[in-house]
Amino acid sequence: MKKNISIVGSGLVGSLLSVYLAKRGHNVTMFERRPDMRSTKISAGRSINLALSDRGIRGLKAAGIDDDIMQIAIPMYGRQIHHQDGTQTFQPYGKENQAIYSVSRGGINMALMSLAEKFENVKIKFDQRCTDVDLRKATAKFHDEKTGENSTIQSDIVLGTDGAFSPVRLALQTSTDMFNYSQTYLEHAYKELVIPANADGSFRMEKNALHIWPRKSFMMIALPNIDGSFTCTLFLQLKGEESFETLKDEASQMNFMRNYFADAIELMPTLQHDFFNNPTSTLVTVRCFPWSFEDKACLVGDAAHAIVPFFGQGMNCGFEDCVVFDEMMEKHGDNWKALFEEYQTLRKPNGDAVAQLALDNFIEMRDKTADPKFLLRKKIEARIATEHPNFLSMYAQVTFSPQISYHTAYNEGQRHGVHLDKLANIENVFEKWNSDEVQSVVRELVR
Amino acid sequence: MKKNISIVGSGLVGSLLSVYLAKRGHNVTMFERRPDMRSTKISAGRSINLALSDRGIRGLKAAGIDDDIMQIAIPMYGRQIHHQDGTQTFQPYGKENQAIYSVSRGGINMALMSLAEKFENVKIKFDQRCTDVDLRKATAKFHDEKTGENSTIQSDIVLGTDGAFSPVRLALQTSTDMFNYSQTYLEHAYKELVIPANADGSFRMEKNALHIWPRKSFMMIALPNIDGSFTCTLFLQLKGEESFETLKDEASQMNFMRNYFADAIELMPTLQHDFFNNPTSTLVTVRCFPWSFEDKACLVGDAAHAIVPFFGQGMNCGFEDCVVFDEMMEKHGDNWKALFEEYQTLRKPNGDAVAQLALDNFIEMRDKTADPKFLLRKKIEARIATEHPNFLSMYAQVTFSPQISYHTAYNEGQRHGVHLDKLANIENVFEKWNSDEVQSVVRELVR
Repeated sequence: MKKNISIVGSGLVGSLLSVYLAKRGHNVTMFERRPDMRSTKISAGRSINLALSDRGIRGLKAAGIDDDIMQIAIPMYGRQIHHQDGTQTFQPYGKENQAIYSVSRGGINMALMSLAEKFENVKIKFDQRCTDVDLRKATAKFHDEKTGENSTIQSDIVLGTDGAFSPVRLALQTSTDMFNYSQTYLEHAYKELVIPANADGSFRMEKNALHIWPRKSFMMIALPNIDGSFTCTLFLQLKGEESFETLKDEASQMNFMRNYFADAIELMPTLQHDFFNNPTSTLVTVRCFPWSFEDKACLVGDAAHAIVPFFGQGMNCGFEDCVVFDEMMEKHGDNWKALFEEYQTLRKPNGDAVAQLALDNFIEMRDKTADPKFLLRKKIEARIATEHPNFLSMYAQVTFSPQISYHTAYNEGQRHGVHLDKLANIENVFEKWNSDEVQSVVRELVR
Repeated sequence: MKKNISIVGSGLVGSLLSVYLAKRGHNVTMFERRPDMRSTKISAGRSINLALSDRGIRGLKAAGIDDDIMQIAIPMYGRQIHHQDGTQTFQPYGKENQAIYSVSRGGINMALMSLAEKFENVKIKFDQRCTDVDLRKATAKFHDEKTGENSTIQSDIVLGTDGAFSPVRLALQTSTDMFNYSQTYLEHAYKELVIPANADGSFRMEKNALHIWPRKSFMMIALPNIDGSFTCTLFLQLKGEESFETLKDEASQMNFMRNYFADAIELMPTLQHDFFNNPTSTLVTVRCFPWSFEDKACLVGDAAHAIVPFFGQGMNCGFEDCVVFDEMMEKHGDNWKALFEEYQTLRKPNGDAVAQLALDNFIEMRDKTADPKFLLRKKIEARIATEHPNFLSMYAQVTFSPQISYHTAYNEGQRHGVHLDKLANIENVFEKWNSDEVQSVVRELVR
């Protein structure tokens, strides 16, 4: 039974999901709030880099688009830590050749939309702001941002891939009973800055790394772009002693940057301009349940589980949603209610886990990556991974092991932490490595 | 500076707040979604009893309406526990003459509205469903449920006393950044039942008690009404082995009731009819912040902190909000931004605390009131209260001590719990009462 399906939002997840639906013969129309980014310039300070990793690649592969995307991706093999004293250290993410991949959100989204539009049963309508959804009727209202016209679209199914502030989710909140919902903001916000390429197009820092300037309660990061530039993001509290609030003028701002990011600012010729002209953006975590309404509507991606960006898993989790959604289409055929229900039951624990992983990783990135105790733990973990090839660290489970769920990875990470702390507390642990004191804990850890 | 103030919702909190505003000379219009309940019958199964206690009485007193309300209130001096074997025990709430007061929501609401309307600068418009609020302009849109007409009201300030599903709060959620919000449902729902008065108008059970049938994972309660009847409420899981889901027909429902509430059902002649005709209602906790927008809008009562009913503090907390709001009017005069900000800063920790107290008390009521260990703790606490007249139990702090904040009471309750558990774990604690083993813990507890 072919369905007429409206997808609200042609972002990363909507575009990929449309391909999965199109391959099964459904008629898909995507309604996108923004203009077509393939013919419109993205506004300054909103370029956003994403870290594509194995779960996301798996989603692209199943849709047959992974090769195209890897062309515009830059492998990052580890974290390049910029200490406040100007020294740098490198922390590999995994084994040799294991990497996460820097891609621009715009680049991958444009590629996905173009791939989707190759299917004759997929259409994208731009400048369509969703103003209301009637879940019981599966109708959605749109306001055309260009013409000002309003329209009501009737379809069999409405899928919400409409992001952190999803209008489809708002309909679940305001027109159904028993909808559990939370939106929680960090006290930190972020501002995009840039390190441009050299005149010859070469990179001004190590290309194949994710750069971090950890400063305990705040941090800056930088990811490489294919044009030789780096997109930098400063994560800083909105209020307090050192915060966006106190960096009101050029003097205080330069003083702050010189104090904490001295090695970076000499690479940032447009720093002042960017700082005072780019927007300051907030960071939200959204949790909700259920994700669907009868056989009429369902949320996929950020709309169901918006997370903070610190584990680089937002897009990857959304693509994994699509893979599971496709498996459910295979399993449940025309029974969309059962499909939605099993999809949400399978994905909810993973959405919760990845949300917590992302929050935890903010503290790890901004604070622990510069902490000797944390570095010792990492070294211990790496040695265990070398000696026990079947052992996977929590980071490796999340990032390189799509066969392990986020939920399992999170629980394993909690369990590992207890044992790694024990080992890190043994004085001269590497000297006693083969002692029973050490190995009994290691055996417990790798079981 | 007199303001034109729109209050969305003329429920308990809106009506009381209008009196405080009127006394300071402001022009108040309340917009109420429902018809005027003074001339319309309340629908069956929605009568709802509330437990008025000292915080609420304090709010009424300051508005000069406490005497009128106490006329329609029935004191309840403790919990009358109905055990499954048919025996009953009585657990006093406090010292002699300390009571909480059963009032009908309708009764107190009607009295408050009539009091408010005595002020010439207070008006109530009924059948006005709020459809949208523009916080920046302080305008609110209403749909007249009788005439079908839509209107847009411009005022200086919009106050949201519009309850758990507040349209004013929805505007904060959908049109401001950094609004933290959660709505969380219990897995239990409730159904109203009734024990009518005897033919001569007398009560069929002890009048001056709150009756509880604790059955571990579920419970029934009953509160007295001035007409001699009791309003009973069955709190039961929606799904699972013993749940609303499984009580689908008269046989299974009667079997369940006979099994667990044998002594009550013989007092309930309309049980079957009520069970299958009254609605099954869900139970939500709402937490959010901030509660206000600039000098334009502010939430008061359930709209800011909807809680489950198990501590009987929802109305009391809302009335206390009004008292603090009034104190802030006194302090900040015409600076409404400062007024809203200090009000929400003072009240937020108390809203959070009372929400948690209410959730915790559900477990206490349905499970612990029948638990020998809990009863031992209660006895120990009572003995300490007798011997140390300055000691106040957490229950007494919440219920009888408006000078102590919910937040402090909650923290003290957590602290008491640790020591009471210690005492309850001492074998034959009352025989050793004057030993140092016991008294050292008691001293720590009452410090």
